[in-house]
Amino acid sequence: VSVVAMVGAGQLARMCHEAALPLGVELRVLAADPEAPAVAAGASCVLGDPGDLDALHALAEGADVVTFDHEQVPPEHLEALERSGVTLAPSAAAKLFAQDKLHMRRGLERLGFAMPPFAEVRSRADVEAFAARHGWPLVGKAPRGGYDGRGVFALPDAAAAEAALEGGPLLVEPRLPIETEVAVMVARSRTGETAAYPVVETVQRDAMCREILAPWPDAGTAAESALAIAEAIGAVGVMAVEYFVVGGELLVNELALRPHNSGHYSIGGCVTSQFEQHVRAVLGWPLGVTDLVAPAVATVNVVGNAHGGEPSDRVPEALGVPGAHVHLYGKAPRPGRKLGHVTVAGTDAEAVAAAARLAAARLEAAA
Amino acid sequence: VSVVAMVGAGQLARMCHEAALPLGVELRVLAADPEAPAVAAGASCVLGDPGDLDALHALAEGADVVTFDHEQVPPEHLEALERSGVTLAPSAAAKLFAQDKLHMRRGLERLGFAMPPFAEVRSRADVEAFAARHGWPLVGKAPRGGYDGRGVFALPDAAAAEAALEGGPLLVEPRLPIETEVAVMVARSRTGETAAYPVVETVQRDAMCREILAPWPDAGTAAESALAIAEAIGAVGVMAVEYFVVGGELLVNELALRPHNSGHYSIGGCVTSQFEQHVRAVLGWPLGVTDLVAPAVATVNVVGNAHGGEPSDRVPEALGVPGAHVHLYGKAPRPGRKLGHVTVAGTDAEAVAAAARLAAARLEAAA
Repeated sequence: VSVVAMVGAGQLARMCHEAALPLGVELRVLAADPEAPAVAAGASCVLGDPGDLDALHALAEGADVVTFDHEQVPPEHLEALERSGVTLAPSAAAKLFAQDKLHMRRGLERLGFAMPPFAEVRSRADVEAFAARHGWPLVGKAPRGGYDGRGVFALPDAAAAEAALEGGPLLVEPRLPIETEVAVMVARSRTGETAAYPVVETVQRDAMCREILAPWPDAGTAAESALAIAEAIGAVGVMAVEYFVVGGELLVNELALRPHNSGHYSIGGCVTSQFEQHVRAVLGWPLGVTDLVAPAVATVNVVGNAHGGEPSDRVPEALGVPGAHVHLYGKAPRPGRKLGHVTVAGTDAEAVAAAARLAAARLEAAA
Repeated sequence: VSVVAMVGAGQLARMCHEAALPLGVELRVLAADPEAPAVAAGASCVLGDPGDLDALHALAEGADVVTFDHEQVPPEHLEALERSGVTLAPSAAAKLFAQDKLHMRRGLERLGFAMPPFAEVRSRADVEAFAARHGWPLVGKAPRGGYDGRGVFALPDAAAAEAALEGGPLLVEPRLPIETEVAVMVARSRTGETAAYPVVETVQRDAMCREILAPWPDAGTAAESALAIAEAIGAVGVMAVEYFVVGGELLVNELALRPHNSGHYSIGGCVTSQFEQHVRAVLGWPLGVTDLVAPAVATVNVVGNAHGGEPSDRVPEALGVPGAHVHLYGKAPRPGRKLGHVTVAGTDAEAVAAAARLAAARLEAAA
């Protein structure tokens, strides 16, 4: 039996487990919590922390490959695993493009991919120099460790920048007039085979992805660009490329070298889900067909709020919406936490989005 | 959290677990073997035998409902559970239509559904009387306990019948000139809501279903008839109705009041799989859309053979067939054992069947 070891045991690992089961693949996760979503769903488990190299070695023991459901693992530990002969997918060098925003921006800049203007700043003077070229306000981002809006700072002026810099150096960029945010999921197998999913619009609210609308009608060259990035950095597994659309141009915002929220619509919305694709890619197996199963697919996240209780109590109400596919992650509800998502596929983009929103709202029981 | 308790822990329970997970429903199985397919996949488990009433009570403890992945549970135990207040879905009275072929034939005859001519026979004289009306050869069936060809006897003459009767009374029917075998999966919720899946052709080989081809183009009134049976017997959950097509007429052959092999195509082939539908129906939740996701869907079973080893070793070869969805059950390979299935959806019925056959053959590694 093939064993895929995954650092992390959250909802991405849980959905990988769901995809691995019918393929006869064992997913083994590294979990800090024995009640983590993937463990609760039945994935085999090594208890431990991703910051602990011994725990990572225990996870890797006897597995075919080690992969990731998040970025929060020290790059030096990944290099140590590789030196000791563990196969990582993606490699430590490729994964760093998702772990360190400055590394990613500098690397893709060298490779010629379009991105927002950026700089590394360490002092008020650095920020003021950047603002002199691009104007206020700016956005500051912690190069490492941020996600879902954490580690991102609005910088209206030099005083705000100086305060934010107390946490360490930042990547700064102008606050761009973003028209849309879009994303592409691509897959690259250990064999080098690649596949691209449809380009999707990702609707953000409170710095968190709330809706994924597929396909984005103005896809242009986003898929080709994402495939070129995957090749250039040697990605293995699935990789999400998130773009800002500014003045009609696609600017790379972020990479995730793992299954990603922007690809959740592929469960039930595409012939092969991103989770099955990830398992296939990291094992070096043939990739699956990435076509949509219907002309329009919408996914809406279910996010905990101050009024909501346990969404699993409200599943029957959500299933009353025709065509609604409910995916809960088995996480304790907390405000701002992604607890699940709903996907609806059909022929009419507005209708599937409306249905997915209604079912998600019923699960959230938003006041 | 809603808990669905299931008697049995085979592949049907495993796929119910896979469907229950994203709905936030806990599937708890009664397993004789701690390595049974559903337990290996992560379903929660009560160890015990379905013939043991105490084990059935332990399974039911605190669950919302008790349902089934097979027929091999004593009807008197089901009645005892109901007397003690356990909710069964289906009820003991409805389940008996799948457990006892004579009870089913007599019940549906009273209700006016078309079936093959049949009789209960206890002696050579009984069989000869039936043969005098319908001619030799006959087919004998054990009223209880048979499946996948077990408990079915070819009766070319009275001597063969006399030998077969040594095992007890039989249901006999003429060996009919069967043109096709077809099946319909229907669902009936505890609320009374019903839904019918497309009518499918089931291709049998060695007395076992090998292929499911959807949709069957001559569906006629099969779905209406199956829904009427579900209403008439008070089925709850999904129910498969298997028909012989003889002289263009549909004759009811068998009922299964549970998810069934003939419905496996619904995973990935229909908007809502039979397994999700079963979970929804037994909990009294709204039923899901049963439409096909493509004009043609083919499922081919993966059956162990004398030459084959472990199909999980050959998954990459099967995934080389474009569009092939592989579902393995985690069972030890043995000749004649159903180990998994492959489903392909597309626009061309012949092409999807050919692709599914090729991928299944690669998994079987048939000589």
